[in-house]
Amino acid sequence: MRILYHLPLDPGCRKIRLMLAEKKLAFELKAEQIWERRESFLRLNPAGEVPVLVEEDGTVLPDHQVIVEYLEECYPEVPLLGHGPFERAESRRLANWFDRKFAQEVSELLLEEKLMKRYLGTGTPDSSAIRAANSNIHHHLRYIAWLCDRRTWLSGDDFGLADIAAAAHLSCLDYLGDVPWEQHEGAKDWYARVKSRPSMRPLLADLMPGSPPPKHYADLDF
Amino acid sequence: MRILYHLPLDPGCRKIRLMLAEKKLAFELKAEQIWERRESFLRLNPAGEVPVLVEEDGTVLPDHQVIVEYLEECYPEVPLLGHGPFERAESRRLANWFDRKFAQEVSELLLEEKLMKRYLGTGTPDSSAIRAANSNIHHHLRYIAWLCDRRTWLSGDDFGLADIAAAAHLSCLDYLGDVPWEQHEGAKDWYARVKSRPSMRPLLADLMPGSPPPKHYADLDF
Repeated sequence: MRILYHLPLDPGCRKIRLMLAEKKLAFELKAEQIWERRESFLRLNPAGEVPVLVEEDGTVLPDHQVIVEYLEECYPEVPLLGHGPFERAESRRLANWFDRKFAQEVSELLLEEKLMKRYLGTGTPDSSAIRAANSNIHHHLRYIAWLCDRRTWLSGDDFGLADIAAAAHLSCLDYLGDVPWEQHEGAKDWYARVKSRPSMRPLLADLMPGSPPPKHYADLDF
Repeated sequence: MRILYHLPLDPGCRKIRLMLAEKKLAFELKAEQIWERRESFLRLNPAGEVPVLVEEDGTVLPDHQVIVEYLEECYPEVPLLGHGPFERAESRRLANWFDRKFAQEVSELLLEEKLMKRYLGTGTPDSSAIRAANSNIHHHLRYIAWLCDRRTWLSGDDFGLADIAAAAHLSCLDYLGDVPWEQHEGAKDWYARVKSRPSMRPLLADLMPGSPPPKHYADLDF
């Protein structure tokens, strides 16, 4: 069986879980506490990060961006990046928007300050970082609404990598109760459509011991 | 003529300049002072970042990673990511090693503290960040030597994206005089081979007004 080393509230890992499920590829999840720097895990990925995908034939693939391209090349039956170089460029541009820009301005700040510091006991949350993230998120939710005014899904007519990347980040923050959906109807409509996809079900069932999500997290009609 | 909006000492921009040159694609460089947030540039790339490539037919491609994949798809005559999904995964893994890990631990720190703060007048350099970067760089130079002990080029038998990404970052730091080549013979041998490629010549001729590079920067026999 294909194995995905992951952490439940890591956006890069959630992206790969969604992508595998959309492509209908079976896999087994193994949680990897990367801060323990397990030697046999470092042999799989010297960068020490999750996700790492191990294919049934033993092929090891680290790095969420590397895995995305590999899966799209090897399992093209359900295409998730679009058809043709320009559609694929737009999918990648928007995925990187969330994986880099949204991460830096919003999700990394909230996950670090509100989740990891508490979980690892590495200090008290920095309230100015949390305030900055809570302010920056509005800009990105408006961008989602703007895109959905012009397109069916974020990068075009079909559900794909851009939606997956955005949902990977936003679902982590929604677990923390940190997405102001009520002020952003357009983004909320998009997320309701994403949430109803079967690939999202396992993510909506995630449960961090001692930190349950808010009630609306798994609710399709939130 | 194809246009590349860029900044001379930005590793992502250098990566695209090298890739275009290796693929023998003609292009014109336009320096973009991204901190001025020019409206017509923001229409090309709402993320406000360089590089942005504009093809002769008007196709606009922002984001160095997006441009890499687009060029490899559209101009496969000189392949730079390798043949087959696993070779391409290894090229992308190593490119991301430099674009993310090396950037975070070394190059972004040095370029921000030693170049941008001075250039934009946004404060005095943080000596603890510079010390951290100067210490971290050794680990990465050892990794380059380790790879070259086992392979001709960083990701395998052929010069490609991994070498280009590593050279893009290291050549920026070499312009600042911040690469301890003398302590890392293996990495130095690799960089000497990279430097002798015609695609490197324009980068070695870059000159920042008021901040000339050290003498060895453009010297092939450094």
